[in-house]
Order: sequence, then structure tokens, then C-alpha cells
Amino acid sequence: MSLTVLKFGGTSVGTAEKILHAAKRVIEEKKKGNDCVVVVSAMGKTTDQLLDLAEEISPKPDKRELDMLLTTGEQITIALFSMALQQEGYTAVSLTGWQAGIQTEAIFGNARITKINTKRIENELSNGKIVVVAGFQGITETGEISTLGRGGSDTTAVALAAALNAEKCQIFTDVTGVFTSDPRYIKDARKLSGLTYDEMLEFANLGAGVIHPRAVEFAKNYRIPLEIRSSIEQEEGTIIGEENKMEENLIVRGVAFEDDITKVTVLGLPNSYTSLSTIFTTLARHNINVDIIIQSTTEENIANLSFSIKTGDLEDTYAALENNKTALNYDSIQFESGLAKVSIVGSGMISNPGVAAQMFEALATDQIPIKMVSTSEIKVSAVVPAGAMLTAAEILHRAFKLGKVEHPSA
Amino acid sequence: MSLTVLKFGGTSVGTAEKILHAAKRVIEEKKKGNDCVVVVSAMGKTTDQLLDLAEEISPKPDKRELDMLLTTGEQITIALFSMALQQEGYTAVSLTGWQAGIQTEAIFGNARITKINTKRIENELSNGKIVVVAGFQGITETGEISTLGRGGSDTTAVALAAALNAEKCQIFTDVTGVFTSDPRYIKDARKLSGLTYDEMLEFANLGAGVIHPRAVEFAKNYRIPLEIRSSIEQEEGTIIGEENKMEENLIVRGVAFEDDITKVTVLGLPNSYTSLSTIFTTLARHNINVDIIIQSTTEENIANLSFSIKTGDLEDTYAALENNKTALNYDSIQFESGLAKVSIVGSGMISNPGVAAQMFEALATDQIPIKMVSTSEIKVSAVVPAGAMLTAAEILHRAFKLGKVEHPSA
Repeated sequence: MSLTVLKFGGTSVGTAEKILHAAKRVIEEKKKGNDCVVVVSAMGKTTDQLLDLAEEISPKPDKRELDMLLTTGEQITIALFSMALQQEGYTAVSLTGWQAGIQTEAIFGNARITKINTKRIENELSNGKIVVVAGFQGITETGEISTLGRGGSDTTAVALAAALNAEKCQIFTDVTGVFTSDPRYIKDARKLSGLTYDEMLEFANLGAGVIHPRAVEFAKNYRIPLEIRSSIEQEEGTIIGEENKMEENLIVRGVAFEDDITKVTVLGLPNSYTSLSTIFTTLARHNINVDIIIQSTTEENIANLSFSIKTGDLEDTYAALENNKTALNYDSIQFESGLAKVSIVGSGMISNPGVAAQMFEALATDQIPIKMVSTSEIKVSAVVPAGAMLTAAEILHRAFKLGKVEHPSA
Repeated sequence: MSLTVLKFGGTSVGTAEKILHAAKRVIEEKKKGNDCVVVVSAMGKTTDQLLDLAEEISPKPDKRELDMLLTTGEQITIALFSMALQQEGYTAVSLTGWQAGIQTEAIFGNARITKINTKRIENELSNGKIVVVAGFQGITETGEISTLGRGGSDTTAVALAAALNAEKCQIFTDVTGVFTSDPRYIKDARKLSGLTYDEMLEFANLGAGVIHPRAVEFAKNYRIPLEIRSSIEQEEGTIIGEENKMEENLIVRGVAFEDDITKVTVLGLPNSYTSLSTIFTTLARHNINVDIIIQSTTEENIANLSFSIKTGDLEDTYAALENNKTALNYDSIQFESGLAKVSIVGSGMISNPGVAAQMFEALATDQIPIKMVSTSEIKVSAVVPAGAMLTAAEILHRAFKLGKVEHPSA
């Protein structure tokens, strides 16, 4: 008998009604003759409500106690989900992280899974039960309740799929799959039937919120096929796997974009071995995420450095650089806000060196200025003025022929 | 170093602000040089909200899953309470029922504690920490989360006090102690400085909601001194112990009363050995609590039976009796609603046979009709018309000299 892991995120279990609906999706899978392990997140806004309560008590609560608090969210969902399955006439059992044997590092708030003792789950499955496991949580060696950090429920699902040798892992969410671009803005956007892990990783890192990058990495390492699909609609989702044979062999798989980008330029840095690391260590210490980095040496021993940040981090970035001006030893800083990042993603790029050029050419035709560029083996990103972001995305979506495929009529 | 167990109920931890306030009460005890173990209930209406959610999913949810759901309530409180203590500069650690080693029977919804493995708590205490334990919950031998049923947090507190050889167990609540009668209605009601376990048991069973009877039984068995006191006011509470040397030697300690009582009379029952048990088994199967029972044999082989129920159970009682009329083999049923029960409690009664007579005499003086009577070694209850309940309570409170003691002025 083959096993399916089904994961439902917070919005898919946000109300009693949604839980009953999600339970029906699990029952459909069970009726196909598959064993089912369900992984759930906390209901809708539960986690935020618990964080608000903690904030009322302490501005900086202890991380162990925060994990103790937050893990109740998923425990509530597993109990209700299990009741919903039972209400439909199926035997089910809910398991907390520690009951499911999910062992983690002794770190609170952001622990990694070290081992899964699958005995209890396997026993319950062999008794014909649907097993409902709390996502996002585990237990340390000394018996402390820990959490896996952001995206933790996705990781729980994939890790369980790996440990239990599941045939597949389905991630149910509020969209029907992964699209060539955001369908809210790009009319032509088309759902992809398949993607490679690496492509999904780039999409996930570019803000396509359907699955956490960490879970994709995990799935890649253990070769677990993932399916992103809707908890509401019945249609097939997007399969993420080793290779993508289902799609036409497109070089570029999709276009991602995000705004609120600010370009920071630090002028007159000493061109020493340590100046770059000193700057980025300072920013990291202030929890500022830096994306694209460009360094140019102008004169001897003097360098100019540009990097992009989220505009929300501008104030903190300015303070961090100003307060450490002496140590960093630069001349001046410049900021340019009102920017956006447009990226193309596709594993076909590796063997197609002209893709970046094709991208710049398409943007140039519409006279869209490019402020910064960064490339990886399967991604090219360009920073452009925010006002031009959607135009740029549309141009690229068209240029790489990502729109809805016209079926030739008879 | 001596140990104090401090228990805070749902209303005492109903908001973040109240939790911070309760934490200060614990710190006062800690500052006296005592080790502290805190037991908490779920915040205010959390349990009811969770029950509502379960109800939306299933009209009769599985008891195991209900325990999984409800135990999150106390887990939320322990985390927040621990944060509050830490915020005040004290080291603290929260423990769920299973982490605290509270083992129970393999029964869901109403398990009894079988054993407490105190190792973890003792380790934490020896490290100088204040230990905050989730009330109402435990773990079965097979690792399932169980609950202790109504009043469970009181029981957790007393059981921990017994297992840890605590010097005392303080029950913090929204009243300042146990009163000779309900001070909202009886102006003269006076806080008792002390009570015996048996007296408290009678009071608790008569609806004085400050502590659950089961916890009092537990405290009695292990001789744990209990103190009922206010989580808001600083004044001394009521000590419950083996004997009561602090009070003047009153025969009657207090007057309790409750309304919404209905008297049910079943006429023309066969006076067989089995007819009584058949009737009360039928009622028990329908979850109807019967209080006072009176049987009178009128003619040969024919008996009349009267018993009192809560008026809310009237409809169910009628249905249960009517639907089983053939089996029960009675002639007819009569109901008398609009009644109330007034009781006097005091361990001094055992050696004072005239107490019941004194009670009836006092009621007769004011022409209050008595519908039913029941007695125990330390309690006499009378069922009277509901309209006469408060008058009866006042008369008895005065007759047994329970009012505020006048100190002779100089």
C-alpha cells in the first residue's frame, strides 16, 4: 500500500468549515486505497494572536516559552482535523510533534529536524488510521518542545514523507499551483504542470509563497515528489520533481517580480580584503537581508559598493552604516528607493548562454532602465524602476513565450 | 527549604494583565525563601471557545481528540505565566502535564492521577527555578494526553503538593476565602479563618465553587493544608486542615443554599427489591443527578418515592420515566418545581444531636414549609419554596450565630 503525505496550511484550515472541507480532500485520497498522513499548520491567525498575547506580557519573551506557547496552535488544528475525519466516518488519530517522534536540535524558535522515530505513526497506519500530525514542531533530546521556524509545516510534511518512504507529498494551499507569473497581474500567466526542485527553489526564494524554500531543499535531497495544489479547487496542481518531462522544453519557466526595493551605494570604501565582510557582517547583525551586491573599483585602493535591500529596512540600514562609519571607513552613502526586481527562472538557462542577453534586449526595446543585475545558473534578476515593474514582467513573459498555449484548432 | 504550591484558576489568569498580577503573588512567596510550584488553568473562556470549535466540527467529538484540543488551553497559560515571571527577573520554566511527570489512567476526559514522577520538577527547583505546571492534564502509560475532568487544576495542585511534600497548597481565586454563607445575599456572612476537610467537602458539594470536592478529598487523604485566598486582595484566606482550632467552637460552620430545585414524586411503585435500583439506574443512564431521596411505603407492596433534581433536568427526567413506564411499573408521576435547598454544615454536629431540631424550629418560627429533608453526619439540608430560600438562609445564619463577631469595645 502506498503512502501519501498531505499538508494543509493555515488558510486551508482557518475555520471549522474549512477543516471539514480539507478533511474531505484527505478522504478522497484514502478512498484511492492509499495510507494518509496529514500535516497541518495553526488555524489562520492563531499564531499571530498568540504572539500578541506574549507581547503584552514581555517585549522579548524567552524562546523556549515562545515555542511552548506557539505549538498549541497546531495542536488545536490536529485535534479538530481528526474530529472532522471521524465525523465523516473514518478512523483517525492526532499526534503532536513529540508523539509523532519528530526529534530536533536543542534550539528554540528555529530548530532543524535531526531524526524521525516513525514507530508510532507506522503502528497507527497499520491499524488503518489516518494520522494527523502537528506541523512546525518537534521535541529535543531532553524532552523540550521546539519549533522549526518559518515554513516549518512544509518541512514537517516533506521530512515525514522522506522518513515514511511516501510515494508523494501534496501541499494544499490557496492557489491551484505554481504559475509562470503572478496571475493577479499578468493576464497570460499559465499554471505549470511541472517544475524541477531547483526552479521551485528560485521561485520560492523570489517570494512565490506556496512553499518554503527549506522544504524544497529537503524534498530535493530525499527526492520526494511534491505536488502544489488547491485545497478548494479539484484541478491538478504543479508537480515538483527531479526533472521536468511534462512541459515543452522551455528555457525560461517563469517570471517573478517584487517591488519595494532600495539600492544602497556606499562610496569611497578602502579596497581592502576586509571592508566587504565588515559591511555585510554589520548589516547581518542588524538582521538586514541584502540581495544583489555589486562592487566596482574606481581608483586604486578605492571601491564603490552597491547592494539592494527591501525598502522597509532602509532606516535600519542607514543607522547601521552611520553608527559604524569610523569602523567601515567610507566616504558617503547614497540611497535610491522606488525600485523593483524582475527575474526570469528556468533550468534550461544553464545550457543557453544567450538568455540574459535576450532578457536585456527585450527590456531595452521598451526603454526600461536596468539599475542592477544578478545572475545564477537558473535565474537572471534585473532591478528596474518600480513603475516599470509590471510592464517589464509582461514583456519578459511574452518574450519567453510563457503565455497560455494556443491549441491549434482542427 | 520549604515548598509552596500556588494554584491560579481561569479567572485569575484571564488576561495578560491578570497573569502579570498573579506572577507578582508568586514572587512574594518566592521572596519569603520558599520554593514555588505554580499550577494554572486555561485563561478565562479559552476552554469554552475550544469546545465551541469542536462542536462546529462534530456534535459528539471523540474524547481522546477532545483532550488533545482542551489541553492546549493550559499550555498557553503556562508559557505566558513563565514569561511573566521572567519579565520580573525570576528564572522560571513551564511544564506540560507530561513534562511534569503527571501520569494518569488510560481514560479520556475524566482520568485519575495514578503517579507523579517528580524528577523533572525537582531538578528545576534545585536550579532555583519557579516551575509552572499545566493543570487539568496528564499522560497515560502509552503516551496519550489525558485530562482530569472538571476541577482538574485543583486536583493537579493538591496532587503535586502531596508528591513534592509541599508545606502548603494555596488556591488563588476571585473570592477572599470561604464564607459562613454567600456574602452577596447574606449581609452578615463572615469569612471563616479555618475549616476541616469534611466541612469543605460539604460546602464544595453544595456549590461553593472555590475548590473542587475531588481536590479536597485528595488533600484530606494526604493531609495537605489548603489555603483558599484571593488573587487580587492581600488579606489572609481560609485554611482547610485536619482540625479547626482557630475558630470558636461553633457547631454549625455555615449555611449554603441553591435554587432551581424540583421535587419529583413517583406514585404507586411495586415495593420490590429492584424497583428503586431500576428507577435510579434509568436516571443515571440519562445523566440526571438525583440529590435527596425519600421513600415511603403506604400500603402493602405499594411504595411512593420522592426525589429532588435540578429543574433544568425536568424534561429529561420526565422523558426517561415516561419512556420506561412499563419496565418501572408505577402509577403516576408528580412534579413540584420552584423549590430551593438550604443546608447547614459543621463537623460539630456529629456530637450534637439537637442541631437538626434547632434548624427545623428556626424555620417553623417563620412559617417556612419544609418539603424534604436529608442529613449527613455534618450536614442537614431542607428543601423549601424558592421564594423563602434567602429568608430561610438568613434565619439559619442568625440562629446558629454565624454573623460577624462583635468585638466588645473597651
